[in-house]
Amino acid sequence: MKFVIWDPGQTKSSELQSECNEAAWLQKGRSLKEKEARLHQLISKLSSMYPQHTEFLKYLHRSDGDESVPTIYVITPTYWRPVQEAELTRLSHTFQLVPKLHWIVIEDSNTTTKLVGDLLRRSLLTYTRLHVATPQAYKLPANPKLSWVHPRGVLQRNLGLQWLRTNLDAEKQKGVVYFADDDNTYDQALFEEMRSTKTVSVWPVGLVGGLLVEGPLVEGGKVVSWNSVWKRHRPFPIDMAGFAINLRLLLNHPNVAFKLKAEIGYQESLLLKEIVTISELEPRADNCSKVLVWHTRTEAPKLDQENNGSYIFQPNLPCFKKWSVREGVEVGIVQINSVTVSFVFLPVL
Amino acid sequence: MKFVIWDPGQTKSSELQSECNEAAWLQKGRSLKEKEARLHQLISKLSSMYPQHTEFLKYLHRSDGDESVPTIYVITPTYWRPVQEAELTRLSHTFQLVPKLHWIVIEDSNTTTKLVGDLLRRSLLTYTRLHVATPQAYKLPANPKLSWVHPRGVLQRNLGLQWLRTNLDAEKQKGVVYFADDDNTYDQALFEEMRSTKTVSVWPVGLVGGLLVEGPLVEGGKVVSWNSVWKRHRPFPIDMAGFAINLRLLLNHPNVAFKLKAEIGYQESLLLKEIVTISELEPRADNCSKVLVWHTRTEAPKLDQENNGSYIFQPNLPCFKKWSVREGVEVGIVQINSVTVSFVFLPVL
Repeated sequence: MKFVIWDPGQTKSSELQSECNEAAWLQKGRSLKEKEARLHQLISKLSSMYPQHTEFLKYLHRSDGDESVPTIYVITPTYWRPVQEAELTRLSHTFQLVPKLHWIVIEDSNTTTKLVGDLLRRSLLTYTRLHVATPQAYKLPANPKLSWVHPRGVLQRNLGLQWLRTNLDAEKQKGVVYFADDDNTYDQALFEEMRSTKTVSVWPVGLVGGLLVEGPLVEGGKVVSWNSVWKRHRPFPIDMAGFAINLRLLLNHPNVAFKLKAEIGYQESLLLKEIVTISELEPRADNCSKVLVWHTRTEAPKLDQENNGSYIFQPNLPCFKKWSVREGVEVGIVQINSVTVSFVFLPVL
Repeated sequence: MKFVIWDPGQTKSSELQSECNEAAWLQKGRSLKEKEARLHQLISKLSSMYPQHTEFLKYLHRSDGDESVPTIYVITPTYWRPVQEAELTRLSHTFQLVPKLHWIVIEDSNTTTKLVGDLLRRSLLTYTRLHVATPQAYKLPANPKLSWVHPRGVLQRNLGLQWLRTNLDAEKQKGVVYFADDDNTYDQALFEEMRSTKTVSVWPVGLVGGLLVEGPLVEGGKVVSWNSVWKRHRPFPIDMAGFAINLRLLLNHPNVAFKLKAEIGYQESLLLKEIVTISELEPRADNCSKVLVWHTRTEAPKLDQENNGSYIFQPNLPCFKKWSVREGVEVGIVQINSVTVSFVFLPVL
């Protein structure tokens, strides 16, 4: 049998098979304690697969116990599409090079997925997994000419903010909050620039707003203007990737959040004007003269051969439920524990 | 003054200014020895900027001195476009997580560029910089409908192979050679899969050939067929990212190279059939059931606002030469030592 998982929870046949066995194990009336013990076994097994890497992260992240070093909380909304696993993989590589980083990943989904869970566990990063589905009415339409009608990631970023407010204490934890989408490119040096943020720090972003570089203009160590062209009259004409916020400042403004119905391009401005003035902004990256983040976008891959072969039907899994068609592709539906996994067969030539 | 460098050698104003000073220093009849000493000073200064990172790479790469561990030689052709710096940045992050990797970067250019040079130095990776320009007649036409007429990266990959043959000794060095384009996404686990390659190892590639996953089909530990659809009758219907070659095998076939005039899709096959048979292929990634590399493609960014502002003319650099127009954008030309650098002014609002 040869298949790949379609959505959500991409995995390979052998993994799925072993997960089916795992599901059978779990269903045999195990206690919560037994399940937890099993989970720890699995995590430990995983770490042993990458011993050198584990050691190396410990070494890099040895400042993690030092409370005087602020933690960087990175809030990343994500959603399933064919390139999701690739995007999160290379993003996790960047974050692995950054000490004391806590990755808060919020899936636009009704459940967390195996794909994102596996990826986060393998990364050995400190992370939190959350999920909230954007209502269909607020999703971007499939027609690209109609895109930008509703902003993406709003509920997900807000859930990330809510997690910070529920779990962190401004008096005890030093931190900085950064909104990092899963398709941008981040230089590892960016994170040391933002770590010392007292209010809101800012820097240029490459390849956004129709420009090679969009960002603040600085004189005498202060932001005095912007080299933005697109919607330049916004209060803060900058991209989501161009600023970080001190944790305490966010916690002290418990009602600040992104808005589902904001005009396109105004998300950043509406949030920032609630908590900071332009004169309080802290320019980073050598007075905003260096580009350390790029607004890269990955093409949707051509999958035009997916229906072009002879699919093989081998539903010999105990968890197999039914066939379905999604986005023109025939997918199988499998139920593992309470999680539904879909897969697609590949042609065998 | 506010400007960004256009092509090649993207940098920021302060860096360019200091480079102008550096150029003046170098021009004052310094001896080769003095220049070398200065170079070492600069490299040392650079390392001191990232002390924790330097330590951490030493730790991860502690196997570098162990001759029994094969080195992975990664050959990456690259060329200037607005997303180049971002692509190489995130690729360098992945490679930093891989022990004993030697990155051979070949620019499609008449000279090496400051952009690529700076990026490689900052990465602290072991690397080799080369350059060779593809003749205009062999470049892909700008019209996307006419693309794929000539393959890209052929001369660059061949120069990489030539470097291996000139500098390495099959009797002394254990190694594996992998062709990694700068826009793909690589899981760090892929490199440990390929490290033990005896002849040619193979694995699936995600998001290529019109499929979610294209790759070898394996039975009894041997490749028996392919789940490729696009041009499936090629001798080896796989992507450049789907195989690695033992160094000795390549050195023992000194005339094997990629071809400028191969039919599209046949580069991999024409090279592999010179050195290996299908039955000799070594399946990796759990018998080719796991996807550890994705053929991601990054969109060309919209730069439609670049001409939309008021550019400020401040040619107060001693190295400033003239104005020119490139791809519809007004660029300034600066001569630093023997290197020509172009820049574009951003609008100041």
